[in-house]
Amino acid sequence: MATSNHQASTRQTNREIHLASRPEGLPAEANFRLVENPLPATGPGQVLIKNLYMSVDPAMRPPLTNGQTKLDEVMTAGALGKIVESQLDGYPVGTYVMHRGGFREWCLSNGQGLEVIQPENEPLTAHLHVLGTTGLTAYGGLLVTGELKAGENVFVSAAAGAVGSVVGQIAKIKGCRVVGSCGSDEKANYLTQELGFDYAFNYKTSNIRKELHVALPEGIDVYFENVGGAHLDAAVGQMRPLGRIPVCGMISAYNNKGARSEGVTTLSNMIYNRVTMKGFVVYEFDGIRAQFLADMRAWMAAGLMKYQETIFDGIENAPAAFIGLLQGENTGKMLVKLGDDDV
Amino acid sequence: MATSNHQASTRQTNREIHLASRPEGLPAEANFRLVENPLPATGPGQVLIKNLYMSVDPAMRPPLTNGQTKLDEVMTAGALGKIVESQLDGYPVGTYVMHRGGFREWCLSNGQGLEVIQPENEPLTAHLHVLGTTGLTAYGGLLVTGELKAGENVFVSAAAGAVGSVVGQIAKIKGCRVVGSCGSDEKANYLTQELGFDYAFNYKTSNIRKELHVALPEGIDVYFENVGGAHLDAAVGQMRPLGRIPVCGMISAYNNKGARSEGVTTLSNMIYNRVTMKGFVVYEFDGIRAQFLADMRAWMAAGLMKYQETIFDGIENAPAAFIGLLQGENTGKMLVKLGDDDV
Repeated sequence: MATSNHQASTRQTNREIHLASRPEGLPAEANFRLVENPLPATGPGQVLIKNLYMSVDPAMRPPLTNGQTKLDEVMTAGALGKIVESQLDGYPVGTYVMHRGGFREWCLSNGQGLEVIQPENEPLTAHLHVLGTTGLTAYGGLLVTGELKAGENVFVSAAAGAVGSVVGQIAKIKGCRVVGSCGSDEKANYLTQELGFDYAFNYKTSNIRKELHVALPEGIDVYFENVGGAHLDAAVGQMRPLGRIPVCGMISAYNNKGARSEGVTTLSNMIYNRVTMKGFVVYEFDGIRAQFLADMRAWMAAGLMKYQETIFDGIENAPAAFIGLLQGENTGKMLVKLGDDDV
Repeated sequence: MATSNHQASTRQTNREIHLASRPEGLPAEANFRLVENPLPATGPGQVLIKNLYMSVDPAMRPPLTNGQTKLDEVMTAGALGKIVESQLDGYPVGTYVMHRGGFREWCLSNGQGLEVIQPENEPLTAHLHVLGTTGLTAYGGLLVTGELKAGENVFVSAAAGAVGSVVGQIAKIKGCRVVGSCGSDEKANYLTQELGFDYAFNYKTSNIRKELHVALPEGIDVYFENVGGAHLDAAVGQMRPLGRIPVCGMISAYNNKGARSEGVTTLSNMIYNRVTMKGFVVYEFDGIRAQFLADMRAWMAAGLMKYQETIFDGIENAPAAFIGLLQGENTGKMLVKLGDDDV
């Protein structure tokens, strides 16, 4: 998307993104700083990873304000790289690994938190979304937290985003009626025409409550929550008996002070309809990762799991990618390319 | 409370309360009508019940507006009465029964939905609260839906009400730190001095968020939700990891159109802290009623379960009792006396 002025750094220097100041509201480029640091030599028990791609996610926003992300230090993000030097048994040169050392071009690691990737027929980048954390978030959130059953009525917000688009397709595979909201007519067309959603609408030009009433007149069994605020207000009021709301994210709130959303006024419907709303994080699903990978690969092979990527090029564009994500500039997964797979 | 002008009806006439018009906002006496109907003779397979007491509950409010309660028909409520005529095997004259035929002085029944009460050392009226639906709501909501664990931090709203006061005492019995909100300084004193709450505050003269921060600086494990709106907004924002919010009621919303509450803006805290919020209704706990009764009687015998009653006298005052309940005029259980136990 962004014009690339990427110049691969040498193994002697490492370009990184630091948090320069805490954003109020939507982050700006000035909140981030590109820093060039020397890279220490690979020591005993260590590997040197050349990062190829990194992920930007809505969940990165609250830590910028609440203090979890430190000022003037390199930021973290999910990344996919290749081991180019190794003094660590079991991690030979040439191994692809997922790790948390994004926002930098090179990464020294002692192996902690490294996940070895064994690509099959899929593109490498799929491990940063449908076959990675994004996919597992959708799969676990919908099937475990959301306890989805065949034939139910499903609503997913931010449905053209990385998680939402996987959620909707899994729900279709499970025989559900699936409705999605998104931020443009183009995205809505993509959802119904490419991903097989039964109904989709552009929330920016619609009344969410009315759209849901038209699309799911009998109500909602599972609302997969990515947005919060007005979306949640509309959805909670239309939940059916024993409905479930797995809460994955609330992107509409993240740029607000204290991550506060627009007010939700319909929660009394949770009582008589015995609705459950449950926040979750992806590491709860570590135990079902093998089943997840098997299912997702089978669905991809059968043409049932499509995806799009929006890729910014170069570490210097990582802040722009993140800011664009928060504004809905992506369809599907937002990635940043950090280097070529040429070593 | 109200001055009684109760005149016991004969067995030939039955005074009942009908819904005359649907209230907007707080119900008024004019929304209800006292009707005198002839009482048919007791037929084969039937019993005639003389009602002694009935319950008024916040949960009765939404059906007045949403259409579940029919216009110009006798209303329903939990009631306790005595069988005075019987042509039904197993239900001899003199048996005390709980049933849904409140808002009337006499009730013909074919036995459906009758629950036989066998009083032990407790007053009969206890079966309309601590030993009845109210108590089971508190017990099941806290221990089953709320999954309370010993030593946790508990917040309960409407804590001086019938359900809230039982919730707080059970939580104390389970070794928890317990904080309650209520609508007057007198009630707050009652909670700490009589019921053993660790802390209580009058929400009408306090900042709920600040009170919770002071009383439970480490956060809330279980918020037993009776009120909604500003209470929920304050509590959700201070939930600890894996916190639970059993949603019993939202009395602050019930007089609003569509039972809409003040806006809740803090729900994003449910994500990282993996909070569960779950609406429930008391019939979910039918299967644990025997254990509930055994526990409650033991706690009452040990002096660990206290209660207060606010009793209005006479069917003609049932609307006033209900309206008073919605304004917080009660401490503990709000009841209406419908007749003397003199037959």
